[in-house]
Order: sequence, then C-alpha cells, then structure tokens
Amino acid sequence: MVKLVAMFTKPDDPEAFDRAYFDVHLPLNAKTPGLRRTEVTRVTGAPRGETPYYLVAEMYYDDEASMRAAFASPEAAEAAKQLMTFAKGLVSMYTAVVVDDRGRPA
Amino acid sequence: MVKLVAMFTKPDDPEAFDRAYFDVHLPLNAKTPGLRRTEVTRVTGAPRGETPYYLVAEMYYDDEASMRAAFASPEAAEAAKQLMTFAKGLVSMYTAVVVDDRGRPA
Repeated sequence: MVKLVAMFTKPDDPEAFDRAYFDVHLPLNAKTPGLRRTEVTRVTGAPRGETPYYLVAEMYYDDEASMRAAFASPEAAEAAKQLMTFAKGLVSMYTAVVVDDRGRPA
Repeated sequence: MVKLVAMFTKPDDPEAFDRAYFDVHLPLNAKTPGLRRTEVTRVTGAPRGETPYYLVAEMYYDDEASMRAAFASPEAAEAAKQLMTFAKGLVSMYTAVVVDDRGRPA
C-alpha cells in the first residue's frame, strides 16, 4: 500500500474549515479513482512541546501506479481545485509507502 | 482509535538510521502496553515541491487514556531513551484522534 498524506496547519476559522473540508472536500476526494481508504485524524496535541497541525488526511492506494493515475484524474483535479479555495497556505503533502517491520514495502 | 505519530526528517546516514530504527527501536516500541498497531511508512516524495520527511511511524491505541498510560510506562521510557540516541533533532511528534467522515471521533 502507498498513501498520499495531507497535513493542515491550524486555520483561523476552524468551523468554516471543517464545513469546507467535511461537507465538500471529502465527498469530492472520495470520487478519486483507485482510492482504497481515507483516514482522517484531528490533531490533539504533542507529547512534548507543540504541533502546528490541525488535521491530517491519509489517502491509501494499492500501489504507486494507482496513486499516480489518481493524481492525473479529473476527479483529483476537481478536489484539488476546491481544496485551494479554503486550505491554501495551510496544506502540505507527502507520499509514502507502507513498510513491514524490516523496512521493506509491505 | 487515537494515535501517536512520529515524523523523522532525512538522516545524514540513512543506513545507520534504518538499523537503529528497525533493528532496535521498533522491537522496543512493540513492548509498549496498550499499543494496538504500528504503521511505518517510508516517505517517497511530494505531489508538488519537496518534503523534509524520511520516515513516519503511527502508533495506534484504543483511546486517549490507553495512550496516556502507555506514555507513562517504563517500556515507553526505554524506547524514548533509545530513540534519542539516533533520532535527536530529526523527530517531531503529534497525537491525533481518528474521525469519521463528519469529523466526529470514529
């Protein structure tokens, strides 16, 4: 499995952010072809110090090829365009591959 | 479910980091009481721009109370101490709660 992870820093207006994210963005995101699962978490704090993050979304795909195909889809383009209407400057993303306890792709 | 997420930026010596992480740290981490699952991912890139991250580990617990109890355990203290021998300056952490598609704790 591979995933795209979107990390959002704290918005000025969390209620407006949540409406745009949960009511509009997540349903658009769910249409992305090849998407297996999305795990959304609300950040609650840090064991030590502080964290800049507010919300993290992890979108799982079967493999790198499926994820790249999804990125190139019209559905992803629409979701990305809508994301920029409320999360510009708040979001950073990375891609990752799930590994086993030896560090090998799982 | 809740989780502790440890994010590691790129180490100077990835092979040495991987040995310390997979051979020593993960087995120590696995002893933490109440730990349900650990998902380790290798960061592969970013859809746009760059990411500073190298490895991300997500440790799942049933609830906030279980996670707090784990943090206070001798096993977590030992794992944290060993972590600092190879990942000091590379690691940042946050805690989070998994939510449903309405944003409510799942």
